[in-house]
Amino acid sequence: MSSSLSRTETLSLFSLFAACVGIIANTFHGDGEPLIASIAFSGIAFASTYALIRWLGDVFIRAGLKGKDMSKRNAPIIPETMGAVCAVVYLLIIIVFIPFPFYKDIVVATSGGGNRDFIVKAEQVETGRFLHRFPHSKLASYLSAILSLQSVVILGLGDDLFDIRWRHKLLIPAFASIPMLIVYFVDFGVTQIVVPKLLRPYFGELLNLGWLYYAYMASIGIFCPNSINILAGINGLEVSQSIIIALLLILNDLLYVLPISPSAPPHPATDSHFFSLYLLLPFLGTSLALWTQNWYPAKVFVGDTYCYFAGMVFAVVGIQGHFSKTLLLLLIPQIANFLYSAPQLFHVVPCPRHRLPRFNGRTGLLEPSMADFTQKPLRPPVELVVKVLGNLRLLKTEEDEEGRVVRSSNFTIINLWLVWFGPMREDRLATGLLGMQIACGLLGLWVRHSLALLVFTADNWSLGISRS
Amino acid sequence: MSSSLSRTETLSLFSLFAACVGIIANTFHGDGEPLIASIAFSGIAFASTYALIRWLGDVFIRAGLKGKDMSKRNAPIIPETMGAVCAVVYLLIIIVFIPFPFYKDIVVATSGGGNRDFIVKAEQVETGRFLHRFPHSKLASYLSAILSLQSVVILGLGDDLFDIRWRHKLLIPAFASIPMLIVYFVDFGVTQIVVPKLLRPYFGELLNLGWLYYAYMASIGIFCPNSINILAGINGLEVSQSIIIALLLILNDLLYVLPISPSAPPHPATDSHFFSLYLLLPFLGTSLALWTQNWYPAKVFVGDTYCYFAGMVFAVVGIQGHFSKTLLLLLIPQIANFLYSAPQLFHVVPCPRHRLPRFNGRTGLLEPSMADFTQKPLRPPVELVVKVLGNLRLLKTEEDEEGRVVRSSNFTIINLWLVWFGPMREDRLATGLLGMQIACGLLGLWVRHSLALLVFTADNWSLGISRS
Repeated sequence: MSSSLSRTETLSLFSLFAACVGIIANTFHGDGEPLIASIAFSGIAFASTYALIRWLGDVFIRAGLKGKDMSKRNAPIIPETMGAVCAVVYLLIIIVFIPFPFYKDIVVATSGGGNRDFIVKAEQVETGRFLHRFPHSKLASYLSAILSLQSVVILGLGDDLFDIRWRHKLLIPAFASIPMLIVYFVDFGVTQIVVPKLLRPYFGELLNLGWLYYAYMASIGIFCPNSINILAGINGLEVSQSIIIALLLILNDLLYVLPISPSAPPHPATDSHFFSLYLLLPFLGTSLALWTQNWYPAKVFVGDTYCYFAGMVFAVVGIQGHFSKTLLLLLIPQIANFLYSAPQLFHVVPCPRHRLPRFNGRTGLLEPSMADFTQKPLRPPVELVVKVLGNLRLLKTEEDEEGRVVRSSNFTIINLWLVWFGPMREDRLATGLLGMQIACGLLGLWVRHSLALLVFTADNWSLGISRS
Repeated sequence: MSSSLSRTETLSLFSLFAACVGIIANTFHGDGEPLIASIAFSGIAFASTYALIRWLGDVFIRAGLKGKDMSKRNAPIIPETMGAVCAVVYLLIIIVFIPFPFYKDIVVATSGGGNRDFIVKAEQVETGRFLHRFPHSKLASYLSAILSLQSVVILGLGDDLFDIRWRHKLLIPAFASIPMLIVYFVDFGVTQIVVPKLLRPYFGELLNLGWLYYAYMASIGIFCPNSINILAGINGLEVSQSIIIALLLILNDLLYVLPISPSAPPHPATDSHFFSLYLLLPFLGTSLALWTQNWYPAKVFVGDTYCYFAGMVFAVVGIQGHFSKTLLLLLIPQIANFLYSAPQLFHVVPCPRHRLPRFNGRTGLLEPSMADFTQKPLRPPVELVVKVLGNLRLLKTEEDEEGRVVRSSNFTIINLWLVWFGPMREDRLATGLLGMQIACGLLGLWVRHSLALLVFTADNWSLGISRS
């Protein structure tokens, strides 16, 4: 990979950057234009990430952050952990973005009711401003979201540097969820959920879950990052699935944010969906830049940092925007992969160090990788289940002459795809899986906005905050 | 270094840990006991950091985070960047600590005026709680402090991994100050300073500095981390100076926090000094643990991450507690070292890659390291100044037969100390420098609390927030 940008690249990126700065400079009027500013910041995020990934490639390799791409003929060595660049750019961008959603409130607060004279009033001195006008709890949510994202990046870097064991890895997003949950507890504390119609005679309209709600949020925070981290291993898959999920979440947000008719009052949940857009748009910007370098044939690897970071963005948005159930509908392939992987993850079935598909150097195609059971034979009930799965074509199994299962394909939907559709090139495999991700996601959104009406009384709970 | 703890160590650390957990569990009554909880959390920070540094030593070396200790006879290789462990433990501790200072407010908010029945009031639904009672701006300050500290840790890790160039290093704390400054801008916005008596006829009692105040805060944020990072290079010096500064800041806080007489009303700045204690005590805990492994002969190196992190803790505390001038009084040795180093840092005088003292293998003592000017002779005016400094014994200089300066000791107060007091062993050098740090610091505090009365009307500005 060349570490310098071509003249065309430099010019395009610089133009994009300059245009975005210009757009941002023009948002300081009236009530401010946070959404337009956010789009422009996302452009800056794209340009900066693109340039930095190229510039830092050699630096990463020299620092030992490199890996072999085993699914290529010559197994080239390329920079690893490039998702960290993505994440750092993203964090800086959303930190600098903090004042924009509050532009209106800052203008109101600093101009007061025209009270900007030198008479220092008790209230002003004590608080610095007329703070009662200011949406502090929104600010605290935003800050705690950034805290959780920063935490996951720090711990993810630790994982990439030290290759933490699987059972410790699981805890990384758990630690990173702490800031968000604690600030939620301190500052917000809504632990009520809307009860489905059928159950209302028993629980009433709203049910207060108390600490169970925190446990639920924590499990979302743990699940999202890890689920992306285990649906990984072929060029472009981690970034592409994250981009698709982000786009679907943005689509979902737009359903709330865009006015149906100019005269209609804004949806009560509008604010939390704007919040979600502000976090997702720059994520899309940095991820697209990473995608250009990570798609087949990859010039850089993304690293665990990126997977944790991406998953945490979704968790934060889903939890703080109170649409975590919708989020889970968009993660159906990840959930399926996790459930399918569970027997290996929890060592019911032997799990090799790596489960990525096997590269066949002769054909240049990927084939399902196999787990070997000859060293440690399966217990009879497990073997029975594996045989049934084999017969249902949900696994590829190999038996010895005595009818004992000696090998099976590894338990990931990536391998399953290869079992179903035969060996194929890495990019066709990724495209197939991503097509399924898009299909599942659109189906999920349709379920959310059509079928949910059958279970809940209204598509959009009129008070807006208790939906989850 | 053994990577496992001895039985005695394990027992002591576990007892400390258990005792602290017990103490914390006992703070949930009345208005809560945040200060006691903070002390207990600091104990946990000490125990965790101590154990983790020992456990992770080998892991760090295997991951390539290691360095040669050049000031020892056999130049042993020991783990580097151990300050990152310190910093991560610290961040987790202060994140978990978030609810404690707000315990009283949470109790008030959740119990309301006894309003915990099932009738959902509009206000409660919209905000989750009776939010008007809650000190949100304090929470936002606390969160932004953590954000800045996390940012400096992420960027500091980048420096330790990639060995960033000096002029880029300078910017690391600048980026990390952004979250704090932005939240300060959004949420607080006090940019007035108390004017010294003499100048009041011209400026009035309070002067609004506007954006200049942000520039001032940013420079504090940039200066503190870098100043600690350049007063470094011998075993124990970075951690010890940070511990001393932290202790002096804690002493300063106690002067405000401890009631002079039980009936006296609390000082108006009490809250911001409690805030400062909550951030400094766990810092002291983790740093003491690091100190035990980093003092001569060092078993681990601290890395740039620690220096940035420590300096940022001081900057955050000084800026958000509105006592940045007091902070600067405690950093006199660092300021002196920066000014003394400036000619080399800004390349007026040639600057070698490393400026740490030279180890003399024969005597086992450290001697001043020398910068060589034969390749690139000094310009005449610079040479004149160097000669004058040499005559004043503020430098050790060597001249050739033509009277031209060909070598001088490097421009750090560490080398200056060796020029003044002759070669000495590494630990005696560190002790000497730290003695000076303590003396300067106590003098600074005395100046702050006695002489300041001559310049400002009251030791403690009665409104409490505008002091700086």
